[in-house]
Amino acid sequence: MSKPSTSVSLSAPTMRPLDLIRRKRDGGELSSAEVEFLVAAYTRDEIPDYQMAAWLMAVLIRGMTGPELSALTTAMLNSGEVLDLSDISGAKVDKHSTGGVGDKTSLIIAPVVAAAGVTVPMISGRGLGHTGGTLDKLQSIPGFNINLSLNEFRRVLKACGCGLIGQTAEIAPADKKLYALRDVTATVESPNLICASIMSKKLAEGIDGLVLDVKTGSGAFMKTEQDSVHLANLMVETGERMGKKIVALITDMDQPLGLKVGNALEVEECIEVMNGGGPADLREVSVELAAWMFYLADRTPSVDAGRNLADELICDQSALRKFREIVEQQGGDPCAIDDPKRLPQAQHRAPVSSPADGFVESIQCEQVGVASLVLGGGREKKEDVIDPAVGLVLHKKVGDPVRKGEPLCTLCYNSDARLSSAQTLLQQAYRIAEKPPAVKRPLIHRVISAKGAQA
Amino acid sequence: MSKPSTSVSLSAPTMRPLDLIRRKRDGGELSSAEVEFLVAAYTRDEIPDYQMAAWLMAVLIRGMTGPELSALTTAMLNSGEVLDLSDISGAKVDKHSTGGVGDKTSLIIAPVVAAAGVTVPMISGRGLGHTGGTLDKLQSIPGFNINLSLNEFRRVLKACGCGLIGQTAEIAPADKKLYALRDVTATVESPNLICASIMSKKLAEGIDGLVLDVKTGSGAFMKTEQDSVHLANLMVETGERMGKKIVALITDMDQPLGLKVGNALEVEECIEVMNGGGPADLREVSVELAAWMFYLADRTPSVDAGRNLADELICDQSALRKFREIVEQQGGDPCAIDDPKRLPQAQHRAPVSSPADGFVESIQCEQVGVASLVLGGGREKKEDVIDPAVGLVLHKKVGDPVRKGEPLCTLCYNSDARLSSAQTLLQQAYRIAEKPPAVKRPLIHRVISAKGAQA
Repeated sequence: MSKPSTSVSLSAPTMRPLDLIRRKRDGGELSSAEVEFLVAAYTRDEIPDYQMAAWLMAVLIRGMTGPELSALTTAMLNSGEVLDLSDISGAKVDKHSTGGVGDKTSLIIAPVVAAAGVTVPMISGRGLGHTGGTLDKLQSIPGFNINLSLNEFRRVLKACGCGLIGQTAEIAPADKKLYALRDVTATVESPNLICASIMSKKLAEGIDGLVLDVKTGSGAFMKTEQDSVHLANLMVETGERMGKKIVALITDMDQPLGLKVGNALEVEECIEVMNGGGPADLREVSVELAAWMFYLADRTPSVDAGRNLADELICDQSALRKFREIVEQQGGDPCAIDDPKRLPQAQHRAPVSSPADGFVESIQCEQVGVASLVLGGGREKKEDVIDPAVGLVLHKKVGDPVRKGEPLCTLCYNSDARLSSAQTLLQQAYRIAEKPPAVKRPLIHRVISAKGAQA
Repeated sequence: MSKPSTSVSLSAPTMRPLDLIRRKRDGGELSSAEVEFLVAAYTRDEIPDYQMAAWLMAVLIRGMTGPELSALTTAMLNSGEVLDLSDISGAKVDKHSTGGVGDKTSLIIAPVVAAAGVTVPMISGRGLGHTGGTLDKLQSIPGFNINLSLNEFRRVLKACGCGLIGQTAEIAPADKKLYALRDVTATVESPNLICASIMSKKLAEGIDGLVLDVKTGSGAFMKTEQDSVHLANLMVETGERMGKKIVALITDMDQPLGLKVGNALEVEECIEVMNGGGPADLREVSVELAAWMFYLADRTPSVDAGRNLADELICDQSALRKFREIVEQQGGDPCAIDDPKRLPQAQHRAPVSSPADGFVESIQCEQVGVASLVLGGGREKKEDVIDPAVGLVLHKKVGDPVRKGEPLCTLCYNSDARLSSAQTLLQQAYRIAEKPPAVKRPLIHRVISAKGAQA
């Protein structure tokens, strides 16, 4: 006996998961009601994991139409609580990054934007794979509590215009359940599913506008410009369709952003920037993202004016004061902001030296992230405990001249056990050439807004 | 945070389901060892349903290479017992049909071939969807036991050269588990998975040769010639790669085979054929399939000689005597073969009349199967109990002239409740035209052997 190509059903037609899986499998389109049914029933445990896994794989391979993706995002958003911040006056905006190495802009942007009176209700994530996470970085500040209830979050927002917390159980439970399933069924790498996951959580913040920082390059999840632009377009279109102001910046992640990688080290570098110093690339990307947030929030009439405002709030230390205020509101030790030496410090330091004279031609950026993870700065398994003090400090970035034996970077570590594998990763990550690289990658590759891509 | 495109693993490489799902998802090829690992681990409950569902969906959409398909079939075959019939002398051959409406050839072929001294160890299936199943038909013979253990099966094979049983728990347990999962994840309709399912069960019979009857047309699972040929090629190539003699006949299923549809009714019609009567199409297809079995078993030097032998064994009633013997060996009432009135009889009969003068242009064959199912001859749900007596008898087939009001067929039923929906299905199934159809579909569309397709 072979297999039925059509099911034999004589009863009245109802919505059946099997039919919806089959339709997507064959490249068809689901209605909003059908997508809503799948998500809601799965969240209520009425559709088993194996059926949802088959559907997710079909979605990954066959793709989704714009209306299907909006329906999916809306259904996931509505599976949980959507913050109502209407009792807080003025615009509410946020930024989301697709993740990178040394990507610490949230810790600068949130205080900068809040210092200008715009509310930033930021719900962030943990480190994932080779990338760091805002929550892990914040937790390196002694006492900082990222596990606020939504009511406490609201209180902090009212008190200082900004709060930084982790996803609560009330926010998009469908995403939590779907993400866990995608993680074990090789259905993570779908631009549609990534878009729905990000947007459903971000729009639950009750924001009016969102700036997306879509990373591209060897340290990003999207390695190519093409993939990054595709994801950015999906998110911008979906957000627009759901009535939000959205813009996406494609920014470079072909080498780490800034010089420091690791949780406490990155907090330290953010404080440097807010003190008027720090690496130029980190400051530039942060200012650019903040400028767009000001523009979307109607706080400034143009992005240019937004850049000027951000620069001003950094120069006069308003941003740093705001950061200190946020830390205090969320139970952290504000003295650690005044004196970063109070942040966790690694016990040992070891250099990685250049094997030759020449110029840094490239830095395989994902390997740098993995090196930090190996030292204990990230998680290989969910259960792993992070060491907030460890990480690395780069001394040379792409284009820099270097002499043989000169340190390319310094590893900050607490345990000898994994030092050598981190060293090997970094030695392999740096490529030294006789001449400097011919082409310099821009920091901001392009801006994508609902009206289409802009150079 | 976005999602990892590469997993961060620092431990020694082992075979991980996730990597194998990902590779198939992206259109890559798995090694034999990897396919074997997936099947074996899933059968041992070491891989969860949701991971296997994702892999099955990826296989359905991306397809498989020939070596992958052979590896899958071999792994499923080796998940259970493979009959060793080496203590029975001579060739062992079997036939498998992909299923159709009124497709009852097994009940004729098995006795014909066994009557010539060739062993036929036939493990069959239940009705599926709109199609009937050999086991259900056999069980309409009072007392017939299809649930023999493999040891009893072996005894029957030795006693009369043929046995007809259902799949036992020892045979290809991987297929049983995978099929149940495919059934609820919309991954049934994959030619590769269909091929592996069929071939793993059939090759567990310990046979030397297999004739495949791949049905094509409105009553088959493969509606188009192209799909049927594709599946036939897969099965022939896989069988060949596994060292078996295989041939596939693409036969017509655009209208029911023979005139009777329903379990006891089909047994009755097989007895008619073995008595030298019965419908010509049923006899022709049965003789053709038996002829190829003789040829593969080296019982005759050519297929032509095989046809002559089959005809002879029908004419001299050797086949009918062999059928009586099989029935007796498996606990059935042999008198029912001598006097088919002893088979279950439906209480009521109702005609379906022609709405117009003309010719039968076509019969939507799947609907005829569904009509029989509706009357109680098949299962809508696994738990349904079959009524062996019900079904229908066609009076008109494609090309036949018909007068308005003349009966097209007669329904045999026991319960009034569903009569009208069966009648409606049949009225819709018959298309009457003014002229006879221009083209007559052949019964045998083509023969596919390992050396390539033959007309």
